[in-house]
Amino acid sequence: MVVTSNPDKAEEIGLYLKEYLEVEHIAMEIPEYRDDDVAEIAKKKGEYAYQVIQKPLIVDDTAFCIDTLHGFPGPYAAYVQKTLGNAGILKLMENQKDRNAYFETAIAFVNSKGIRVFRGRIEGIIVPERGSLGFGYDPIFEWEGRTLAELSTEEKSWISHRARALAAFKKWLKEGGIDSFAI
Amino acid sequence: MVVTSNPDKAEEIGLYLKEYLEVEHIAMEIPEYRDDDVAEIAKKKGEYAYQVIQKPLIVDDTAFCIDTLHGFPGPYAAYVQKTLGNAGILKLMENQKDRNAYFETAIAFVNSKGIRVFRGRIEGIIVPERGSLGFGYDPIFEWEGRTLAELSTEEKSWISHRARALAAFKKWLKEGGIDSFAI
Repeated sequence: MVVTSNPDKAEEIGLYLKEYLEVEHIAMEIPEYRDDDVAEIAKKKGEYAYQVIQKPLIVDDTAFCIDTLHGFPGPYAAYVQKTLGNAGILKLMENQKDRNAYFETAIAFVNSKGIRVFRGRIEGIIVPERGSLGFGYDPIFEWEGRTLAELSTEEKSWISHRARALAAFKKWLKEGGIDSFAI
Repeated sequence: MVVTSNPDKAEEIGLYLKEYLEVEHIAMEIPEYRDDDVAEIAKKKGEYAYQVIQKPLIVDDTAFCIDTLHGFPGPYAAYVQKTLGNAGILKLMENQKDRNAYFETAIAFVNSKGIRVFRGRIEGIIVPERGSLGFGYDPIFEWEGRTLAELSTEEKSWISHRARALAAFKKWLKEGGIDSFAI
């Protein structure tokens, strides 16, 4: 059995990994560690959660990083969205030639034998707001000619940073990683 | 005995509170909890530290909040200083009429009987950089006509958010708060 702290994603993850794992949702309050690297945050969250529930589990963490702003807003994407919003980001990006940015998700899998972190990243550029789908930074993040707010939920779920991290996790499971990992 | 996780401030705090408490520095890694309110963060840090060391202790946390930016950068002041710097803050504040901002420190005192949080705040306005003393946001934060970077270290230490939180703590100690608190 695998446990995830993410209520919205448990079912999606469960379906995606059903050949390899049984996924169940457990709601749990985990300290929100501060670190520049999402993989490090996911690892700390996973270690904390394992200490509490003592069962194999998955946790994740996502960052949104803008190159020219030295990675800002990084792991504080949710807080910055709430306070500055997309208008604030676009203001900071005025006259900036380097528009590169990326979303990154890290998924940590923990069991009695240790911890393993899988990353997924989607790279794009910061643009003026376009599109009405999605949420958060979607309208100002362009990937291959369209903003994430111009992609359908289904399309977005295929190409997303989270999907890529999950794909890396699934590949590892498929190749028997969990068996060699768990002795 | 009281323990603080803050290496720079332990001696200063020790001198200030010497009539009431013996202060010793203990270095310790504490998860950096995310919350909009510094008092809540200090409380969580205090509870965590108490679980680990099981001795009366002090921990603190500081935020820098700009009203018109909905409290940004708040508890992430250090991260935002590192990534956006004062130039980024001034950019976000271009054409903003409401320049109000404040620093706030929360000090949590924990012993076997419970936890108590003391706040200190200094209010001012965001201005173009002036002054060469201090660090971080000091040059863009004006208090009573001068920026914090225009105040001597001694002056600053008297009027600071931290000094005000410590004063509230000392007042509580002086009034016998710790005795009624600790049964």
